[in-house]
Amino acid sequence: MKKSVGILGGMGPMATCDLFHKIISHTNASHDQEHIHIYIDNNTSIPDRTRAILYGGKSPINQLVKSAIKLQMMGSDFLIMPCNTAHYFYDEIIKYIDIPMLNMPDETAIEIRTRGYNKVGILATEGTLQSEIYQKSMGKEEIEYIIPSIDQQKFIMEVIYDGIKAGNYNIDLTNFNKVLGDLFDKGAETVILACTELPLAFEKFNINYPNIDATDVLARATVRFATENSLNLESQFA
Amino acid sequence: MKKSVGILGGMGPMATCDLFHKIISHTNASHDQEHIHIYIDNNTSIPDRTRAILYGGKSPINQLVKSAIKLQMMGSDFLIMPCNTAHYFYDEIIKYIDIPMLNMPDETAIEIRTRGYNKVGILATEGTLQSEIYQKSMGKEEIEYIIPSIDQQKFIMEVIYDGIKAGNYNIDLTNFNKVLGDLFDKGAETVILACTELPLAFEKFNINYPNIDATDVLARATVRFATENSLNLESQFA
Repeated sequence: MKKSVGILGGMGPMATCDLFHKIISHTNASHDQEHIHIYIDNNTSIPDRTRAILYGGKSPINQLVKSAIKLQMMGSDFLIMPCNTAHYFYDEIIKYIDIPMLNMPDETAIEIRTRGYNKVGILATEGTLQSEIYQKSMGKEEIEYIIPSIDQQKFIMEVIYDGIKAGNYNIDLTNFNKVLGDLFDKGAETVILACTELPLAFEKFNINYPNIDATDVLARATVRFATENSLNLESQFA
Repeated sequence: MKKSVGILGGMGPMATCDLFHKIISHTNASHDQEHIHIYIDNNTSIPDRTRAILYGGKSPINQLVKSAIKLQMMGSDFLIMPCNTAHYFYDEIIKYIDIPMLNMPDETAIEIRTRGYNKVGILATEGTLQSEIYQKSMGKEEIEYIIPSIDQQKFIMEVIYDGIKAGNYNIDLTNFNKVLGDLFDKGAETVILACTELPLAFEKFNINYPNIDATDVLARATVRFATENSLNLESQFA
């Protein structure tokens, strides 16, 4: 029997749905009962993470902990969280649960190392970048990285907030594409989609730059973790 | 604040994901916090419904009730269940919960009446058809219906089980299309996709016959029910 997983979601809802879809797609199953038991809390009461980290907005920690505890109560064997920025609160959340939680930035860094990239661009929210969540994960795997300038970053935020989160698919991508081109000009071999809204943007807007989809990495890690019997569930706490 | 909804899912997982996606898409929201709080139990331990209803297979009722109770415990204000066949057990499930559960076949019948159709074809699992779930809902709204013959029905089951549930998108659709053509020849003005795997089949296989997607009807009813302040939550029990 596969382990069951809890998805601490709602950040945003479409990104949560995207992760759910990717887990199902990556699961080797020929009928319903062979799929992974998944609990989802699409908690839309979680305050904005970037606003909390950078601009003194309301902290999301209470809602994050509430969802994590509920998902454990439901019967989850482990948790995942499809919001990169929320990983700023990862260490705080895991104090409240007795089950492991996969770490999306760390899983992504391992995947990049495995694929043999040496230098990557990071596309993420301002909260994720300024709190250096991905920079730290890249550091663990000794991967070089490039991030957009402060001026460029606002075009990334536009696509995330005014585009995907707002459900508006008619935004101007000229500047966003320039930022991408610039990262590759500066030596990036690929870019990490280090915000869970970005794979949706790349798909909706048919953006074709080489990329590592952190949501997809997390989905594959989830299927492995749920399926592998030999896996030690406590290893995440080591 | 919008009401929160619990999705009693896993039948199958991709159909559950489809409903989740449709609810998000139909919600008028410009940022995460305006979306509906959704709890999902993608419970893949629920035994096959058609097998239980028609062939003495293990009853799904215990797992259905377990999920319903868990979803209420999580904080759901009302429930929905993206499996038409499982509505055979609807009356039994609601005995165990203190919150309303929208009824997908009934919502679909109301939608068909609203759109002004008089005669519809019903595409569903053998379990849904033989237990007359949709026939009863159509009867309440005085809508005429046509169902495939027993010989034709096996082609519908193939698409549902060997196609979508098995994740196999290379099946032969010749006979399935003949069944559809036959329903329209016999006077159907549209067909109800009365199995939650069928909208996925129509999308994946680019099938273009006019249809009423019961999952989409349920998604819209959910958004209305979650949003309307004036709605009496107890009315489902009347």
